[in-house]
Amino acid sequence: MRKSIATVSLSGTLEEKLAAAARAGFDAVEIFEADLISAASPARDIRAMCADLGLGIDIYQPLRDFEGAAPKTFRANLRRAAGKFELMRELGTDLLLVCSSVAPRAAGDDGLIAEQLHTLAELAAGHGCRVAYEALAWGRHVNDYRHAWKLVAAAGHPSLGVCLDSFHILSRGHDPAGIREIPGDKIFFLQLADAPRMLMDVLQWSRHHRCFPGQGSFGLAGFLRHTLAAGYAGPLSLEVFNDVFRQADAERTATDALRSLIALEEAVLPESPVAPPAPLRGFSFAEIAVDPLGGVAAERMLRALGFTRAARHRTKPVHLWQQGDARILVNAARPAPADRRRGDAAVSAVAVDSADPAQSAARAEALLAPGVPRSFGPGEAELTAITAPDGTLVFFCGTEWLGDFSELDTPPPGAAGITTIDHIALSQPAHHAQEAALFYQSVLGMRRHDPVEIADPYGLVRSFAMTSPGGAVRLALSVPALAGDPLPQSAGHQHVAFACTDIFATARAVHAGGASILPIPANYYADLATRTDLGTDFLAGLREANILHDRTEDGEFLHFFTTMLGRRLFFEVVQRINGYDGYGAANTPVRMAAQYRLA
Amino acid sequence: MRKSIATVSLSGTLEEKLAAAARAGFDAVEIFEADLISAASPARDIRAMCADLGLGIDIYQPLRDFEGAAPKTFRANLRRAAGKFELMRELGTDLLLVCSSVAPRAAGDDGLIAEQLHTLAELAAGHGCRVAYEALAWGRHVNDYRHAWKLVAAAGHPSLGVCLDSFHILSRGHDPAGIREIPGDKIFFLQLADAPRMLMDVLQWSRHHRCFPGQGSFGLAGFLRHTLAAGYAGPLSLEVFNDVFRQADAERTATDALRSLIALEEAVLPESPVAPPAPLRGFSFAEIAVDPLGGVAAERMLRALGFTRAARHRTKPVHLWQQGDARILVNAARPAPADRRRGDAAVSAVAVDSADPAQSAARAEALLAPGVPRSFGPGEAELTAITAPDGTLVFFCGTEWLGDFSELDTPPPGAAGITTIDHIALSQPAHHAQEAALFYQSVLGMRRHDPVEIADPYGLVRSFAMTSPGGAVRLALSVPALAGDPLPQSAGHQHVAFACTDIFATARAVHAGGASILPIPANYYADLATRTDLGTDFLAGLREANILHDRTEDGEFLHFFTTMLGRRLFFEVVQRINGYDGYGAANTPVRMAAQYRLA
Repeated sequence: MRKSIATVSLSGTLEEKLAAAARAGFDAVEIFEADLISAASPARDIRAMCADLGLGIDIYQPLRDFEGAAPKTFRANLRRAAGKFELMRELGTDLLLVCSSVAPRAAGDDGLIAEQLHTLAELAAGHGCRVAYEALAWGRHVNDYRHAWKLVAAAGHPSLGVCLDSFHILSRGHDPAGIREIPGDKIFFLQLADAPRMLMDVLQWSRHHRCFPGQGSFGLAGFLRHTLAAGYAGPLSLEVFNDVFRQADAERTATDALRSLIALEEAVLPESPVAPPAPLRGFSFAEIAVDPLGGVAAERMLRALGFTRAARHRTKPVHLWQQGDARILVNAARPAPADRRRGDAAVSAVAVDSADPAQSAARAEALLAPGVPRSFGPGEAELTAITAPDGTLVFFCGTEWLGDFSELDTPPPGAAGITTIDHIALSQPAHHAQEAALFYQSVLGMRRHDPVEIADPYGLVRSFAMTSPGGAVRLALSVPALAGDPLPQSAGHQHVAFACTDIFATARAVHAGGASILPIPANYYADLATRTDLGTDFLAGLREANILHDRTEDGEFLHFFTTMLGRRLFFEVVQRINGYDGYGAANTPVRMAAQYRLA
Repeated sequence: MRKSIATVSLSGTLEEKLAAAARAGFDAVEIFEADLISAASPARDIRAMCADLGLGIDIYQPLRDFEGAAPKTFRANLRRAAGKFELMRELGTDLLLVCSSVAPRAAGDDGLIAEQLHTLAELAAGHGCRVAYEALAWGRHVNDYRHAWKLVAAAGHPSLGVCLDSFHILSRGHDPAGIREIPGDKIFFLQLADAPRMLMDVLQWSRHHRCFPGQGSFGLAGFLRHTLAAGYAGPLSLEVFNDVFRQADAERTATDALRSLIALEEAVLPESPVAPPAPLRGFSFAEIAVDPLGGVAAERMLRALGFTRAARHRTKPVHLWQQGDARILVNAARPAPADRRRGDAAVSAVAVDSADPAQSAARAEALLAPGVPRSFGPGEAELTAITAPDGTLVFFCGTEWLGDFSELDTPPPGAAGITTIDHIALSQPAHHAQEAALFYQSVLGMRRHDPVEIADPYGLVRSFAMTSPGGAVRLALSVPALAGDPLPQSAGHQHVAFACTDIFATARAVHAGGASILPIPANYYADLATRTDLGTDFLAGLREANILHDRTEDGEFLHFFTTMLGRRLFFEVVQRINGYDGYGAANTPVRMAAQYRLA
């Protein structure tokens, strides 16, 4: 289906917005009036620019506070509309969006409104134009799409139809099934926006918190199915007012936007050209990028945690460290990011064990995931990788890449009892939580869990999990609640969490191995004693090994942390008991405070 | 009155929070449980630290989900409380805050709750402690302070009283007059928080948007009057959950916090030790800091605008430029801020014409405004200056400082028709809008107006005016809606707006003078023609002179802008017609887009 985006959804001057929409691959745009008014280019130049970029202009929007007006105001409103129709001719578009009036003095008389809409449609027809009437969720009298359609039907003019906007309908909890009762050719335009569920004033919610389909909580797929069932055959157009997108790089936002429409289309169309997500069976490895200093520290820490240097890449300074099914590649060849300081180590890549790497790669490409240019040495495995929004590489592979490695030591069975990678925690740049969530959700077919708020001593952080179906691949993503200096240091932290089945035994082994474990304050254990029924000996064991404890209705969680490697990375060891499904978020402020004390 | 702050209101580790509260001048703190649990120092060390800092610990908080519990849970809750009383002994505080239960299973039986609170009070008494029971706005059964008081009265234990929190009471619109019916000695504690009026879920509102008294919309003075009338004689304590304060510099926040309490106390106490604000009669001058390159450009622009170089400072490289009563000091001696680039000019000081500079200065000191160390040459006027939160100096003076200047040219009467400084627009650092508003409100006695949202092409900006009584001093402050890179350039812009009485004549004069005027796009005037009834000739006049137009119910506004001097500063010329009281915010996105095209 034709895909469009309103210029208000993107950052920049009008000319920059158009360029970004075109580069991302959109077919068309909605021109938002305020963008045109501020533009230096006259309408005919904007028309030419869109033509050069291969972009249609599908609608001009909005005309506000038009209907239900007293005679004198109505004459002024018609003059205003006539000016817009003339402008639209220069712009080369024939559709004008009229949103329901919010004017305090607007009359709520349906007969008058229908008559005024008819007059407007007649004026439009004289200019070769059409009018799409939309009910704003906070319209003075018309704030339900069924009411808007009733008025359009009553007006009965071929140049008048409705515009449906998913936000205005779903934010008010109106049943979208009623869309099926509107003839498809009277639905002149369709605007799509998602939003997180928030209990707040609908106008503020709409102006600041809309997001792209799949990034919020609305049932966009069901909404679109109703609209298609009604016979709508026009473009899918995104109209998203969002404070972050107003400020972010326009092309990045446009790509995120188009990805959301491709995923939505896939969810709705009976036959999608996009390959379905391949099952993910776990982490094949996590790669840690190091400089020489960080490499020494990382390898010392891994050895203390019971890992063995199992293999070395044939041509690159990359070592495989292994324990059980937990594999860490320590890579000294990854180019250093600009902010890397001496001794820093960072998660540079995550490899997921896809049941069909080629299918995963094809899906990623269809969903606009940026690929990674790679160089292969003779005989090296051709691994497919994409780049996640935070810059982390994501590989789709099993263990075929082991062919590129020469074996070194044989991992001893058991060692410290670490069995696999439980989850990988990655901080995301401020403002990019939605983009990251949609990326993993659409490209890898993962599920986003509800966010939790974490009181870092130096600022609030939001954290949410993404899990693959079955839960073999778990990511914990976190973002600062506010951007801006000074961000808490945890805003740059990452960690790899390893699973074990007897955390006390593992703790003893890594203690014996000389691992540097994060000390947890006595106050934490004193509180734990008052609020749980854990026995004295058990509590003493936790305290001695700096193990933290969490309990939910799902089960129990025991975990401890290493100290930091450089400024970014640390490791965690976890034991999940009785199906505990979280990440110990209740303990995170304690962990962060402990880390700050050592920083 | 004794002044206290909850540690949750400040950023940092517990030890840092305590140090910041003490340095700002607080008498006491509330220790927030999560802060203590994360702390490395055991309770007795925190007690010693507070003693060293001269801080009392007035309450430990909170104990949650205590009452209305089934027998088994109740026994566990008592054990939990006992642990806290033991901890409080080490901490050296005797008051425990218990907030009403939010547990889904909590019973709403008043008799049971009163009985369980009595049992708790008895346990507390055995430890030499007391309990303050508080109704959370979102409590499961108890969410009204009158209900909490009824339960406390029914429990009838001398060690049990209520804690009143202004947020929980005012957010729900509960009438605080009922506080007068509570015996003052049964109000064990008083927590104060303001908040902006928001239509949103009260829990989210409370957790993220509380602010210090005077920064929001609640009637804190009336609230406090009721509490004092009831006979409450305990501390005024701030408990403010705010995402910004969690992240900001703790000492800065603590100073802002204490200023809010001093101003609140002044509003409520019959005799305040704080000098009242002196009347402000206008701007005495605005000072622009320049480097040599910026100085040449600024002086060329001022001359083109019709200003005359009227005087030179006797000992410093400072010139007075004057037209009518508009005075600009161009200062080449101000130390350059770290981010100043060659050719930048910036508003470095604002001088307000105080009817009593000494009184203004005394008030500023009482309200913790940082003073400015100044050096005086022989015979120089001793001007009092303070530093506003954004670093701008604020002088209190008339024109006595002219004695330090030697006269140069006599300003010709009229010149370009500029009469005075209309307003000064200063961008504030992201996140510091509340602090700036409280500063000007309390220190200078100005009024804060409602904010407007402005769609800078590169990000949303919020702007609000501060005006002195009578409106002779007007500041327009703006802050980015979101912090974080990349901020729109306008986030660093400042301007000085000059008033005139015939903007077309002034525009002709400054055009003749060679001033570089910001070009406004034709699209703006095309839109203006469709939405107003302005005549064709008038519109042509606006367009020719790049004058923008705004109209509200108050009147009309005409204004034009110069191009930028460096990266920060520009000038505006405005004409207010028929009592127009705004700042042309509707046109600001057009102005910003025009500035970006020239940048």
